Amino acid sequence: MPFHTLADVRAMLARLPASDQAATDAAMARNGQLTKPPGALGRLEALAIWMAGWQGTEKPRASHPQIVIFAGNHGVTAKGISAFPAEVTAQMVANFAHGGAAINQLAKAFGAKLDVHALELDRPTGDFTEGPAMTEAEVVAALAKGFDAVDPKADLLVAGEMGIGNTTVAAALATALYGGTGWAGRGTGVDDAGLARKEAAVAAGLARHKAMLGDPLEVLRCLGGREIAAMAGAILGARMSRVPVILDGFIACAAAAVLDKAVPGALDHCIAGHQSAEGAHGRLLEKLGKEPLLQLGLRLGEGSGAALAIGIVQGAVACHSGMATFAEAGVATGG
Amino acid sequence: MPFHTLADVRAMLARLPASDQAATDAAMARNGQLTKPPGALGRLEALAIWMAGWQGTEKPRASHPQIVIFAGNHGVTAKGISAFPAEVTAQMVANFAHGGAAINQLAKAFGAKLDVHALELDRPTGDFTEGPAMTEAEVVAALAKGFDAVDPKADLLVAGEMGIGNTTVAAALATALYGGTGWAGRGTGVDDAGLARKEAAVAAGLARHKAMLGDPLEVLRCLGGREIAAMAGAILGARMSRVPVILDGFIACAAAAVLDKAVPGALDHCIAGHQSAEGAHGRLLEKLGKEPLLQLGLRLGEGSGAALAIGIVQGAVACHSGMATFAEAGVATGG
Repeated sequence: MPFHTLADVRAMLARLPASDQAATDAAMARNGQLTKPPGALGRLEALAIWMAGWQGTEKPRASHPQIVIFAGNHGVTAKGISAFPAEVTAQMVANFAHGGAAINQLAKAFGAKLDVHALELDRPTGDFTEGPAMTEAEVVAALAKGFDAVDPKADLLVAGEMGIGNTTVAAALATALYGGTGWAGRGTGVDDAGLARKEAAVAAGLARHKAMLGDPLEVLRCLGGREIAAMAGAILGARMSRVPVILDGFIACAAAAVLDKAVPGALDHCIAGHQSAEGAHGRLLEKLGKEPLLQLGLRLGEGSGAALAIGIVQGAVACHSGMATFAEAGVATGG
Repeated sequence: MPFHTLADVRAMLARLPASDQAATDAAMARNGQLTKPPGALGRLEALAIWMAGWQGTEKPRASHPQIVIFAGNHGVTAKGISAFPAEVTAQMVANFAHGGAAINQLAKAFGAKLDVHALELDRPTGDFTEGPAMTEAEVVAALAKGFDAVDPKADLLVAGEMGIGNTTVAAALATALYGGTGWAGRGTGVDDAGLARKEAAVAAGLARHKAMLGDPLEVLRCLGGREIAAMAGAILGARMSRVPVILDGFIACAAAAVLDKAVPGALDHCIAGHQSAEGAHGRLLEKLGKEPLLQLGLRLGEGSGAALAIGIVQGAVACHSGMATFAEAGVATGG
C-alpha cells in the first residue's frame, strides 16, 4: 500500500513532484521551429508543451493511454436520488467486462488500455445524511486502490467512474469544498421531484458533517464514495509517476477537487477533457481553473468525455513530435 | 470530367442526392436502446445518426477517412497581403510530400488517407482587383479536379488547402456572398498595415466584379482561386457519392459557402469540424448554420482542424455502432 492512513496521504501531498522545466523549455523551442505560422495550432501547441514537461522529454507521446474506471455503490441512494436502481452499477460493470459500454468503444477507438475496478459493490458506503460515508480505513483503501491502478508506464491517464447515485455525492463534495448552493443536477435524468430529493440529501449531508468541512480529506471520507476516492487516488498516483491526466466530468472533477483544495497545484498535471452537460460541471471547472478541451454535451461518466479528448491530445503530440522544422523542410519563414 | 461548363455544374447542383431516411430512422431507434441514459452522449448521438443517414446504414463507420489537400497560388499576392512569400505554397507542398507538415501527422494519428493536389502553382490566378481570377475553363477545371479527387469508397472526407494569400481570397468571397465588411483577418499573421492592404484588396475586388455578385459560381470564378474551387468541387463530389464531409476553417468554409448560396441544403452532408481563430470564421459558420465540433484556436489550414475532428466522429460512430443495447447487456433501464 502506498499509504496506510490519511496522515500518510497528507504527507505525500506535501511532496508532489513538479513538471520538468528543461523539457518544457526544449519543447517550446522546438514548437517555434515547426513548419507553421507561430501559434497556428492554437491550444494544441500548449498541450504538447505541457505533455513534454510532465513526460520529461522534448517530444512527448500519447500512444499508450490508460483508462481506469472505478465503480462504487452509495448508501444515499436510499433517499431516492437516482433515476436508475443501484443494481445498475454492477450490471454496467458486467457490460464493461463484455465490451458493450461507450467507454469500451472509445478505448478501442483511441488505442487505450481499459481497466475496470469494482469496489465492494455489495457493501455500499454509509448514507451520508445519517453518518460518515466511510471510515478512515475504507477511504484510505479506496485511495490506495486508485493509486495502485495507475500504470506508471502509461503516457496519459483517464480516470472514470460508474456509480448509481454519485452525482448526488459529487454535489455534496462540491458544496462542502466551495460552498454555495445549486451543485446538484439532473444526473442520469431525474425529474423535478428527484432533483429536490438530491438537494435535500446534499443539505442534510452538509449539516450532518459541518464540523469536517474545513478538511478536504475528511470531506472525502464523510461525503464521498469509494469510486470517487479511488479516482482521487489515481490522480495522485499519476502525479507521483508524472503521468499526465485528462479529467472527465462532474464526478471525476469533484474527486480531483479534493486534491486541489488539499494542496494548490495538485492538479497541475491534469487538463480538463470536456465540459459535461451535468449542470454544475462548468462551475466546478472554473473553480479548478481548467478550460475544457471539448464541449459536446456529454453527461455519461465512465471517463467517456475524457476518453474522447485522448484523440485531441494524440493529435497535439503527433504534430509537435512529428512535424518538420523550417530548416529540415526548406520552407521560408514569414516576415 | 464530371462537367465541362458552369452550366453543367448548375445542372448537377439541381439534382443533389438526399440522406437516407430509413437508415436515419433505424439509427435513431438503435440509439434509444444503447446502454446509456437517453441523450448522455450529447452531440455524439446526433453525429452518429447523421453519419448513418449519409452512409445509408444503421451502423455507420469512420475507419476509412480521406483528407484531400489542394494547393493554389493567387495573383492578388502582388498586393502585399500575406506575411509569407508565394514560394511557400510550393515549399509546403514539398513538405506534405515528405510527411513533415501538421496534416501529415494528423492523418496518421486518425488513420486517414492523405492526397495532395498542387494546382498549377507556377500559373497563379489573375489578380482579382484587376480582372477575373479565372476564366470559365479554369474554374471548371479546378472544380472537376476536386470532384474527381474524392474516393467514393471513403467513409468520411476532409477537404483542406494551402495557398499563400488565400485568406484574402476567402474574405473577398465571403464579402461577395454575404455582404458587410470586416471579413478580412490576420491570416498567417499580417500586421496592421498588411490587414489594411487585405481590406483594400477585398474592396477593390468587390468593386471590380460588382456585376457578378448575384451569382455564386461567377463569384467563385472572379474572386476565388483554384484550391478553393477544388474544395468546392470535392464537397460536391462527396455529396454525389453520399460521403459525409467535415468542413475545415475559414477558407474551406468560404469554398463551401459558394455551394450553399447556389443551392440551399447543398451542405447538408457537411458538419463544421472546428471554429478557427481566423477572425471571421465564427461569423461564416453562423451564415452556414453550422455549429463547430471543436474550438481550439487553430488557424493553420491544411484541413488540420477538420482532421482533428475526425477523432470525434470516430468516437461517435464507435459508440453508436459498437455499444450493446440494454437487452443485449441485461442492464435495467431507468424509470
